[in-house]
Amino acid sequence: MPHTIAFTKGHGTGNDFVIVADPDGSLALSDAQVAALCDRHFGIGADGLLRVVRTSAIAEGAAYASAAEWFMDYRNADGSAAEMCGNGIRVFARYLADHGFAEIDETPIATRDGVKILRRHERGFEVDLGRWVVEDAEYRVRAKGLDVARPGLGIDVGNPHVVVALPADSDLDGLDLTYRPILDPDPSAGANVEFVVPADPLVQHGVGSLRMRVFERGVGETLSCGTGVAASALAVHHWAGPAAPDSWRVDVPGGTLAVRMADGHVHLAGPATLVYSGQITLA
Amino acid sequence: MPHTIAFTKGHGTGNDFVIVADPDGSLALSDAQVAALCDRHFGIGADGLLRVVRTSAIAEGAAYASAAEWFMDYRNADGSAAEMCGNGIRVFARYLADHGFAEIDETPIATRDGVKILRRHERGFEVDLGRWVVEDAEYRVRAKGLDVARPGLGIDVGNPHVVVALPADSDLDGLDLTYRPILDPDPSAGANVEFVVPADPLVQHGVGSLRMRVFERGVGETLSCGTGVAASALAVHHWAGPAAPDSWRVDVPGGTLAVRMADGHVHLAGPATLVYSGQITLA
Repeated sequence: MPHTIAFTKGHGTGNDFVIVADPDGSLALSDAQVAALCDRHFGIGADGLLRVVRTSAIAEGAAYASAAEWFMDYRNADGSAAEMCGNGIRVFARYLADHGFAEIDETPIATRDGVKILRRHERGFEVDLGRWVVEDAEYRVRAKGLDVARPGLGIDVGNPHVVVALPADSDLDGLDLTYRPILDPDPSAGANVEFVVPADPLVQHGVGSLRMRVFERGVGETLSCGTGVAASALAVHHWAGPAAPDSWRVDVPGGTLAVRMADGHVHLAGPATLVYSGQITLA
Repeated sequence: MPHTIAFTKGHGTGNDFVIVADPDGSLALSDAQVAALCDRHFGIGADGLLRVVRTSAIAEGAAYASAAEWFMDYRNADGSAAEMCGNGIRVFARYLADHGFAEIDETPIATRDGVKILRRHERGFEVDLGRWVVEDAEYRVRAKGLDVARPGLGIDVGNPHVVVALPADSDLDGLDLTYRPILDPDPSAGANVEFVVPADPLVQHGVGSLRMRVFERGVGETLSCGTGVAASALAVHHWAGPAAPDSWRVDVPGGTLAVRMADGHVHLAGPATLVYSGQITLA
């Protein structure tokens, strides 16, 4: 039966989402419906869909009902369920705040990767991504546009990343990320691969700075990847040694994000923008 | 000053458009505003923008005011003015009909390429693209995924096309159109390049049939190109000789279109779909 729903479109540094309010958990979207909504030519078009639903309203959120009012039901563009998205949850926070669903001030939001804390930030919103792990294994990374294989550092920020340092902006600009980078060893679950160029000088006014491009597993090059931005700052922080600052600025093709390490947690901050609202009839 | 406008999103076989109603010609959109609206991550996202305006309301339409009530102000995704679009004008007709602006029944619509006649069709809407010209010059076309250069036929359908026949579906599927095909000679203004595989048998129940993929100049591979579909059918019609039918079915990655030749004019028919409506604040 045709059913018209209201939605909002938003993005964080170009990582874009269809946002659907469903406080009472009455809107069951099939994988095919989500994929149709996220199709960039036949639907609305987005990297993913964020359903705004009360933790108490759905079985999946019940475990978090005492810790958080809202659950981020994040779906990939193909309709599959996803755990977390560092840009998505900041856009989710913007939506809650602008639509009067919640104040954002040390606010817990439940996700399939657990409860995350959101704060307002001078750049927009900040999310606490929690603890990270620097892997022992070293990777060799080949990519189209690189003359030699380069070392990569494995970092887990809830999902796996391999970060590769390049010497100059021209190396970063010369990469052809229409082709998937090749990792040796090849992680069985794959990994997102970030290429970074640390700034020279690395630190200005106590803030470290770098540029990044990312190849997301299963997707390709994207304008921004929240956890990839965090992993990139963590890798350069790791390489820079004990004197490295805890605050970082990361420039990605879609904009600028801030990363901060505090009390063993990594935090990601940046713009989160609602672009337009609309109405669409579900097939 | 912020200004919120209503819009509709539509597509014809995946060729997609932002449609804005501006009957009185009061909405002057800068190139930068159109480009922002058409951006697929930061805006709405589309191949182009269609402004629905009365011929009598704008200087550009005045010459057509006695021939047509409505003018299709078609803008490319970068904001530049465009002359015509075979899929866009069919979506424009759908919009006029569904929003009560006009009945579509041999209805003239003014464009920068003159007045076009629109009709309802069992597949959606049909546009009369007018006369065509088969060029004398023969092209040699190279493309990534083709083992040898192949001959191409130049056809002008208001804009220039070069059509290349391939022997088998596997040849068409094996093309890598992330790379621009190379034409020899190279037309100074460029050309859209279509690769086609005629069906076997070519004609069933009086209708010829072919598959097509297209590389649009300045854009890259697209899901569909209206004039390219017409040019492809005209090329296969030309190669097939005097016994060839005048009705054709063309399958493109975004769907299926019908082409018909009558009285020296070529007509393009196919689906034209409105997907959703929305409201956005102009920057």
